[in-house]
Amino acid sequence: MRLLPRPFLAALALLSCLAQPALADTPVETATKDSLKEWVAFLRLPNITKRSTAEIRANADWIEDAFQRYGYTAQQLEDGETPMVYAAWPTQSPGRKTVLFYAHMDGQAVKPEEWDQESPFSPVLKTMADGAWTDLPLDRLLNGESDPDDRLFARSAADDKAPIMMLLAAMNALKAEGRGPAINIKILLDSHEEGGPPTLKDVVKRNADLLAADAVIMLDGPMHISNRPTVVYGHRGGAGFELTVFGARTELHSGHYGNYSPNPAQLLAALLATFKDECGRVTVAGFYDGVVFDDETKAAFASVPDDEAAINARLGIAQPDCVGLSYQEAINYPSFNIAGLKAADVGANRRTIIPEYATAAIGMRTVPATPPERLIALVRTHIEAQGYHLVDGEPTEEERMKYPRLASMKGGGGGKALQTPLGAPVGKWITASLKETFNAEPVRIPLMGGSVPTSGLLSLDAPIMLLPLVNADNNQHAANENMRVGNYYDGVRALHGLFLTPFETIPAD
Amino acid sequence: MRLLPRPFLAALALLSCLAQPALADTPVETATKDSLKEWVAFLRLPNITKRSTAEIRANADWIEDAFQRYGYTAQQLEDGETPMVYAAWPTQSPGRKTVLFYAHMDGQAVKPEEWDQESPFSPVLKTMADGAWTDLPLDRLLNGESDPDDRLFARSAADDKAPIMMLLAAMNALKAEGRGPAINIKILLDSHEEGGPPTLKDVVKRNADLLAADAVIMLDGPMHISNRPTVVYGHRGGAGFELTVFGARTELHSGHYGNYSPNPAQLLAALLATFKDECGRVTVAGFYDGVVFDDETKAAFASVPDDEAAINARLGIAQPDCVGLSYQEAINYPSFNIAGLKAADVGANRRTIIPEYATAAIGMRTVPATPPERLIALVRTHIEAQGYHLVDGEPTEEERMKYPRLASMKGGGGGKALQTPLGAPVGKWITASLKETFNAEPVRIPLMGGSVPTSGLLSLDAPIMLLPLVNADNNQHAANENMRVGNYYDGVRALHGLFLTPFETIPAD
Repeated sequence: MRLLPRPFLAALALLSCLAQPALADTPVETATKDSLKEWVAFLRLPNITKRSTAEIRANADWIEDAFQRYGYTAQQLEDGETPMVYAAWPTQSPGRKTVLFYAHMDGQAVKPEEWDQESPFSPVLKTMADGAWTDLPLDRLLNGESDPDDRLFARSAADDKAPIMMLLAAMNALKAEGRGPAINIKILLDSHEEGGPPTLKDVVKRNADLLAADAVIMLDGPMHISNRPTVVYGHRGGAGFELTVFGARTELHSGHYGNYSPNPAQLLAALLATFKDECGRVTVAGFYDGVVFDDETKAAFASVPDDEAAINARLGIAQPDCVGLSYQEAINYPSFNIAGLKAADVGANRRTIIPEYATAAIGMRTVPATPPERLIALVRTHIEAQGYHLVDGEPTEEERMKYPRLASMKGGGGGKALQTPLGAPVGKWITASLKETFNAEPVRIPLMGGSVPTSGLLSLDAPIMLLPLVNADNNQHAANENMRVGNYYDGVRALHGLFLTPFETIPAD
Repeated sequence: MRLLPRPFLAALALLSCLAQPALADTPVETATKDSLKEWVAFLRLPNITKRSTAEIRANADWIEDAFQRYGYTAQQLEDGETPMVYAAWPTQSPGRKTVLFYAHMDGQAVKPEEWDQESPFSPVLKTMADGAWTDLPLDRLLNGESDPDDRLFARSAADDKAPIMMLLAAMNALKAEGRGPAINIKILLDSHEEGGPPTLKDVVKRNADLLAADAVIMLDGPMHISNRPTVVYGHRGGAGFELTVFGARTELHSGHYGNYSPNPAQLLAALLATFKDECGRVTVAGFYDGVVFDDETKAAFASVPDDEAAINARLGIAQPDCVGLSYQEAINYPSFNIAGLKAADVGANRRTIIPEYATAAIGMRTVPATPPERLIALVRTHIEAQGYHLVDGEPTEEERMKYPRLASMKGGGGGKALQTPLGAPVGKWITASLKETFNAEPVRIPLMGGSVPTSGLLSLDAPIMLLPLVNADNNQHAANENMRVGNYYDGVRALHGLFLTPFETIPAD
């Protein structure tokens, strides 16, 4: 496959008819093509973190074997439950900077009935035709005949098995070219990114020498929606909890007690309403304290080529919330998000009752200036200021009869946010390499909205950057996850270019 | 069983030892005892309206046969899906007033795992011992040896099979006494009170001559919590709908879009919060318009022996809402109740997403001054006044891009409220009879909080009253529904007394 538009390909075909010699694939293209069958085989292995340790173990065995088959160092690092995998270019030189690439082999849970294919673990190649995704023969991909806009649909097709296979393909390209890398390549493949016990921190500490690096690059998350090469300097952290408001001790008949016994769903709604103003800004006192943007950051926001009208049309919203002046600025603030609501039942199972309690699942996103512990404490204070007495677990009889408003907050804590300075050498190195490979200025994103587990890597004491390589519209974490084939090819090119760029070529400020 | 306190029974036993003759059962007591095995057999028949028409049909067959076995008129009235049952004293006299007693044979859905017994359809006799319900042998009930405070646990034990069996027992008592009733007794047993198609109206119209009556008495709903004989002059109506607020067209990653794409659960919370003030009064303009209480009604509120501290302790609430000055007044206002809330998931299935929509199941209760259609219209106006565009079903693309706030209201309409004037002759007749039977002033409730389908009976053009005979704490509609045995005995006495009280004995004002 060539990453050229179709009219150009047609023109090439015409030249070919005129008895011109066909253009030969580059070693990078050949290595990429050769890796496609491995990618598909890898995607056939179910990998849901929360479901089965045996599933994850099978993925670890397979990827360890794959790196070894192609001649690289690979070994499993036990994490107590399932192994992670360490891989590396077979030789490391003390004269070169060392970069640890991070990706993860595990995937989010699936609801198979929501997928438009037999199984999330039976990859299907599709193309958009007349506004609908239409199946294509998988051989079109495997034979390297795909169009860049074809997509491969499977759980983890993008998040995060594609980057793992791109690493393998880019190393194979170097080998085919008979070249060694300009950096020491180390790879760590997590088995617990999407759930389960957070074992990364322990694994990294136990294998400090093996994983020691001058920089860490996480290959996770989506590229900018423009699909231009993207460098990300940080990410938001997270803090989740469940907020439950209590009503009477049992469900009540809504006829006999409606207007008399307080309805906890009504109370929860009123409480949640106090958290935001009418355009989505959090009204909890102190929530945004410490968030300030310097000129370089503001310039970075402005330089990201966001088309907000297009974003809105894609999301299907007439108007976004007004936290910040732009999408980029919005995700540089901490957020307060209701991820779920539940009280008794709606729909066919609804009953004529007053629920006994109502629960909201809250997911907050944090930025470096607003650590999770502080936000959780502010939220507690805010809830108490609305007249609530907070209990642990269920209220006691005494609490029931004493406090008119009772609620609980379960959970808390959460992952740290990360922000590598926009001027850090590692960022300049990646940016320069991408610019060289693609002959275009990469998109520089100060902070991405999502969260990745960089806190587990902090003990390496190396700057951490994110290099997303997958299309933004990949349906990450949802049904019909997919990877754009053109992005897969480009991802291998990006990594191959990075492997060949010495750290020393970082341009001066 | 005698409705006497235990110490008195012990004294009687002592008298018996002193060779005094044992007190013989009255014919009412004997008839009541004899009916207990029929009641238990009836409860063994599953009767969930929404589950199976065959289940309901088996109940109709059984109860038709039971009335016939004891020598009464009985026949099935087809309602298109399942039959209702008509029964009557075998002779009717034009010289007597005719009273149609209404009850229903069907029951609410069950979640068997929530019941503390093998099956909701295997009745279990229990007594409260050391603060816990403790099983007793069923023979204790069947042999007439129960204590009044024993309870029989089963679906429909109270709601509403007990009143049906009380009718049968009270007629049998008359027969044993060799007496005829002072009124013409007609009985209509509904098969669709708890759900399914509302066929009552059609059945009543098609059988207008058969069911013609001077008064209708519904034997449904709970007695006053004091467990004193209770007369109810009306009930609230209902109007339900589901309110859905729409967000982006799909679930979104809460990291990438939190602070940008409006969260429909947050919007729903803010919208619901506008419906009530901080102590539960509905703030929708015009919602309470027309609700006024005359002096007689206020006096009736005041005479109901509610112990609100005890109600609060039972419910487990420190403070009730402040709609009205008392519990009785509260339930004479229309109510707005969130019966359920749902957006994505909470608990183990929670995901780090922004939900695509959020839904509240709303159940309103209406009073005669606030018909359902008017309340629904006021709610629509209120929602639109909060900036919402209301759609039918899903929003179109055009609506998505045009309106920042989108919602839908599904369903509506609902059952009519009923209020028979406090001075109506039929109310005086019932009150006088109960006072005679129990030698105590009955509790007169102007309007009960729940809803019963009296609208199906309006074409009979007869005043309608409610005569609840079951204990208030029967767990109606919920798990562990139960009937207090003493109330079963007293219910037969109440009906027997009513059968023997001519309408003509109504005291003058």
